[in-house]
Amino acid sequence: MRDSYREELDDIRACLVEMANSVGSQVSLATTALLDADVTVADRVIAGDAPLDATRESIEQRCFNLIARQAPVATDLRAIITAMRIASDLERMGDLAEHIAKVARMRFPDSAVPQEVRPVFLEAGHVAETLVTKAGTVIAKRDVEAALELEDDDDAMDKLHRQLFREVLSDVWPHGVETAIDITLLGRYYERFADHAVSVARRVVFLVTGERRVTTAP
Amino acid sequence: MRDSYREELDDIRACLVEMANSVGSQVSLATTALLDADVTVADRVIAGDAPLDATRESIEQRCFNLIARQAPVATDLRAIITAMRIASDLERMGDLAEHIAKVARMRFPDSAVPQEVRPVFLEAGHVAETLVTKAGTVIAKRDVEAALELEDDDDAMDKLHRQLFREVLSDVWPHGVETAIDITLLGRYYERFADHAVSVARRVVFLVTGERRVTTAP
Repeated sequence: MRDSYREELDDIRACLVEMANSVGSQVSLATTALLDADVTVADRVIAGDAPLDATRESIEQRCFNLIARQAPVATDLRAIITAMRIASDLERMGDLAEHIAKVARMRFPDSAVPQEVRPVFLEAGHVAETLVTKAGTVIAKRDVEAALELEDDDDAMDKLHRQLFREVLSDVWPHGVETAIDITLLGRYYERFADHAVSVARRVVFLVTGERRVTTAP
Repeated sequence: MRDSYREELDDIRACLVEMANSVGSQVSLATTALLDADVTVADRVIAGDAPLDATRESIEQRCFNLIARQAPVATDLRAIITAMRIASDLERMGDLAEHIAKVARMRFPDSAVPQEVRPVFLEAGHVAETLVTKAGTVIAKRDVEAALELEDDDDAMDKLHRQLFREVLSDVWPHGVETAIDITLLGRYYERFADHAVSVARRVVFLVTGERRVTTAP
């Protein structure tokens, strides 16, 4: 009984890691669609969101069944509820990648991103991919150290976000209000993507250590 | 045993309704802070967010203990997990009200909202308050009809959101890029607030009917 329980929980964890990998591909492709104004890639991202929703639903159902069948308590119960929440974070990250792809699609054949801010979005895409890859590692290995690194990457994303606003608000911004709106929303999507990655890491840290907050080493 | 379980679940539900009421006050005050450029009210909203976070945590802990103690299955288990998720939606709605208040605070003593779009934000504030009030009713009475109304209110919010973009993108928009960024983010906050209210309603409908999607009556 307990063995099959462990197996099922390990398998759910493997599904979460796979889900994190898919979300990483989605945000990477979405950034490509955005920077290259590539509508085919944008469509691929948009089509790739439904499978993520289905995975989330399947993970939730399996967690639910596990609780109903095994009546776990304490850490075991917490592990299952954490898995449900992580699935929910990852699904939301997938939605945000889709939002990015939709902005790229909406402006096609033009690019939503003017030359001046391309490097910022290129970097935001890299940071987003790194964040979700590390989140996958944190889930797979319950790695508290990797969770700490993730907070630093999130700081990097916040810096990029501020840099974006500086560019758009500079006196020489020649691209008008529509582009400013696109960039504001895109910046927000990447920022929220990073927030959810941090949330995944914090949930794992809480599960492992019982501490609610991640604090950086002294 | 079962009676104390029912009592505890009823009490958790009452807490969720109270939490919805608090979130309603928060978004109403945030809209006032925004439209009146009132920094005292903005600060009140910002200070009011921590108690909502604490309520969410308390509800989660109670749900967790209930599962661990009573080992519920089927609908009972689903009701508790739904309560946890609703608490999470409501907390996020509180965050969004706080975000609105922070924009008001950042632009004080100026107003973040120019005259042309004041009516849109006034209406968005009303719709947001209506949505969370109805969400409270849906939770309290498991009222599937009220849940359907809520979808209509969400459509109203989407219309306001589109109207906002039309105003900002009109040829005669005189307020420049910074104000356009503020308004884009504010619009997004109200829209997400509405999305979470709809999510609360859908969770209750799913719990009551077992149907994942709310469909409007023919």
